[in-house]
Parts: sequence; C-alpha cells; structure tokens
Amino acid sequence: MLDLENFFNEVRNIVDLKLDRLVPLGITEPLRLYEAIRWSLFGEGKRFRPALVIAAGREFGAPDEKLVHTAAAVEMIHTYSLIHDDLPAMDDDDLRRGRATAHKKFDVATAILAGDALQAMAFGTIAGDESLDQRMRLRLILELSMAAGQMVAGQQLDLEAEGKKVELDEVEQIHKGKTGALITFSVRAGGIIAEVSERDLLMLTNFGKRLGLLFQITDDILDVTSTSETLGKTAGKDIASRKATYPEAVGLAGARSLAKRISAEAYNELGPICREDSMLHDICNFVATRNS
Amino acid sequence: MLDLENFFNEVRNIVDLKLDRLVPLGITEPLRLYEAIRWSLFGEGKRFRPALVIAAGREFGAPDEKLVHTAAAVEMIHTYSLIHDDLPAMDDDDLRRGRATAHKKFDVATAILAGDALQAMAFGTIAGDESLDQRMRLRLILELSMAAGQMVAGQQLDLEAEGKKVELDEVEQIHKGKTGALITFSVRAGGIIAEVSERDLLMLTNFGKRLGLLFQITDDILDVTSTSETLGKTAGKDIASRKATYPEAVGLAGARSLAKRISAEAYNELGPICREDSMLHDICNFVATRNS
Repeated sequence: MLDLENFFNEVRNIVDLKLDRLVPLGITEPLRLYEAIRWSLFGEGKRFRPALVIAAGREFGAPDEKLVHTAAAVEMIHTYSLIHDDLPAMDDDDLRRGRATAHKKFDVATAILAGDALQAMAFGTIAGDESLDQRMRLRLILELSMAAGQMVAGQQLDLEAEGKKVELDEVEQIHKGKTGALITFSVRAGGIIAEVSERDLLMLTNFGKRLGLLFQITDDILDVTSTSETLGKTAGKDIASRKATYPEAVGLAGARSLAKRISAEAYNELGPICREDSMLHDICNFVATRNS
Repeated sequence: MLDLENFFNEVRNIVDLKLDRLVPLGITEPLRLYEAIRWSLFGEGKRFRPALVIAAGREFGAPDEKLVHTAAAVEMIHTYSLIHDDLPAMDDDDLRRGRATAHKKFDVATAILAGDALQAMAFGTIAGDESLDQRMRLRLILELSMAAGQMVAGQQLDLEAEGKKVELDEVEQIHKGKTGALITFSVRAGGIIAEVSERDLLMLTNFGKRLGLLFQITDDILDVTSTSETLGKTAGKDIASRKATYPEAVGLAGARSLAKRISAEAYNELGPICREDSMLHDICNFVATRNS
C-alpha cells in the first residue's frame, strides 16, 4: 500500500496548497473567524474525499488542475459538516482530527459561523473555477448542493435515532445521507470532470455508494475497537451516546462480514471501467482494512 | 404607498409559491427538518430582499420568470442567517417573524441543520434555474457566495463588538456585512438578470449599498422606538445585549439625521438610471420611513 500512502500525501499537498490560497489568513477580517476555519481545515484529516475526486478524475484522464478546485470544495463541505456535527447541541464532541474541536478551541458562535462560511465558500470555489466549462460547473454545484442537503437530512435522522433500537435499513438510511452522499459526489465529480460516458458515470456512482457504506461500517467498527489517539477523535462515542451504528444493529461480527460483502461489491463495480492497478481499487482496499 | 403595498403582496405571492415548490412538505424525510425549514421560511417576513430582486429586475425589463428563482434563493439565505443568528450561542432570541424562533419551536440541533439545509438549497436553486443562461447563473452563485461570506463575517464582528464602546465606522463595517451584503446582492441580481450595462450595474450597486445602510439604521432606530408586537421580533434587544448600533454610536437624533442623508444619497444614485415612478424609489422611501 506504499503507492496509496504516497497518493494520499500527494493529494494532501495539492489540496492543502489550494485551501491555503482560498482561505488565506491575515488579509481578511475578522481574524478569529478565519483562524477557526483554518484550525478546522488544517487538522490531521486524511483528505479522503478530495482523494476520491482526484483518483476518479485521473483514472479517466482529467488533469489535476481541473480537479483541485472541486477537491478543495468537497473538503470545505466535509469540514463544515464536522464543525457543526461536533457542536454541543449535536454530537457534543471535544476532539477532532487530533485536536480540540472548533467550539472548544474558539466558542460555539464562532464554530457555527466558521461552518456557515465554509459552506458558502465551497459553492463559490466551484462557481469561480475557470478551468471547467460553465455547464460542468453548474452540474457540480447542483449535485454538491443536493449532497449537502442529504448530509443534513442524515444528521437529523441520526440525532432522532439516538437511544432507539434501530434496524439495519434505518442505519443505512442515516448513513446514505450522513456519509454516503458526499463520498458518492466526490467519486462522481471526478468522473464528471473527466467527461466519462453516462454509463461509466453510473458505475462510478454505484462504486461511490458502496464505498460510502463501507466507509461508515468500518468507521463504526473502529469506534468500538480503536482508541481516541489512533482515531484523532473520541473513540467509544457511538456506544456512549447510543448512536445508530452497524455493530449496534447487526453485532460486531455481523458488521465485519457486511463490510467484506460490500467491499467485494464495490470492487466489482469498478471491474468493467477501471484498470487492474487503479488507485480506486487501492482506496477501496484501504477503506475495507483501515485501522484509523 | 398603496402601489408599494400591492407590490410587496404580489412579491410575497410569487416568491412564496416558488418556495413552497422548492421546499415541499410531506414527500421528503426527515419530516421534522422540513417542518423547521418551513416554519422559518413562512413566517410574517416582508420578503424585502426578493422584492429588491424583482423591483430591480422589472425596472430594467427582466420578466418575472427569470427573477423568481434568484428571489427565492435570496430569501433562503436570509432565512438561514436569521435562524443561525437567533441561536442561543449567538443573539439568543425567542421571537422572529411574529412567531417562536426555530430553536424554540423545535430544538437547537434542528435549527442549526435547517439553516444549513437552506444555505445549500439556495445555491442549488440558482444552479438549476434553466431560465437563465449558464454564465449568468455562475455569476449569481459566485456573488451570492461572497455575500453569504460577508454576512457571516459581519455577524462575527457584531458578536465581538457586544458590550464594547463602538465608533461609527465600526458599526458601518459590521452592518456592511451583516445586512448590507445581501441587500446589495439582491439589487445587483435584478440588474444582472436584466442584463443592464456595467455602468448601470455600478449605480445600482451604489444604490444597494446605501439602501442596506439605511435599512440597518432604521432597523436600529425601530429597535429603540418600537414594540415587539409591531416588529414581530424582540424590541429593545440591542440595548439589552449591548449591541453595536447607530443610536449607540451617534445617538437617536444623530441616527435619524444620518438616515435622512443616506436616503437622499440612495435616491440620487437612482436618478440617472430609473424612471421617476420607479418601484425602487418607493422602496427607498419605505425603508426611510418604515415603522416595522
């Protein structure tokens, strides 16, 4: 998996450079707001979603300069959702990306506003991306807006399910929105920018959906089996707050076997459209076997 | 002012019909989230910002069907900002648009998410507006994203200024973002959709900036001189929470004379580009003399 590690590092360099330019510090008032935005953006995150945009885009021949704005926009949306989900009124979490959450480091008001600003910037970033033609930008904005809406709906369902006994299909419903929508968008965005055929885009989309589910299942498993230090966020949180999770719905062994099945399905979706040594395959393996 | 009252009623009908279609209830899960969004959208608001989009657009010959999506998007952004600004961690307000604020009627988490969803929908609404050409949609999205960013920055400055002695230029700085940015965008949007010349757009922009200031000055004056019942939101709130306001910075009489001056300036900007009986003139008069 050395290649994949290099790839993630490369993505981080490219995307962080772009984010650093899009959200510069020191030239814009109010300072505290931009500090909170940058505090949240530049933690230890894996840049997993930008990596999907770039891996899918490269796979089908899109140059990096056409992918990087959208990759940065996706990371902005992801970061805003983390900031808001961690708020005391929501999941009430103190640790994220290996550091204090925005509302702990700054305050709740600043955290809410930092998230709000990031969401606005994400759409502006794509709208202003002159490397993409206008039709493509509008399609990406429209789809990102829908994904952002689904994320919010998923978070709402997640909060409403707390403390209740949930069935597998309810857990899936929650996470299709909460995690799946943006992961699916990220994969699709790479394909859209590379101008793949609608048929290939459909297979990419199916891959993205399976990958999103897989990501959440292994996330839930790690919450039970890992430590806060390894995760960079509070471990054991799901059980403590009686969250709807896969281990909760089907047991730890059940979740593990589900992960195996979904990962095979995801892999299969790629078969007809990707090279054997595609980075998308490696990412899928990584998600299936990850320990952080 | 009968014409203007009719105009506001007409705008409300057009925009509320569009909003009702864009945020339908009952077909989308989770129900509680959509209830909170609709609760906040369909209060007693004047639809002031949509009225600006439509008045400016009509003045320069744009048909309503090209204006209404953007008018609805502007109301979504405005409503999201009200929901978030009213949160306990921000201005902590219980009353808005003549009814309980979203976090009082529902809960804080739902209110945060309702605001987040509205922001995403606003950008998607413009991206999907097929009555406008692609270049125009992208310009509107980019400018709306910047306005939304400025609103957040203004709110942050406003919170930071609470309880401090402020100078007039600081109050202006706060409100240029908090109120001015979206009002200016609304006026510009009408001009952009009507494809006015860049020279006329500049004058419209200057009008919008003065109108935004005027709106905030009279808002601050009303907070001191009016009742909660008339305003549909908590009166006397600014003083109680020691907010940076015009009466605070320059006294009530000073604020009134400033309003008079700014209103004349706004009116002057319109002179070269608008008809004598333009609705934009009437709106300017209305803001200068409003009592709610």
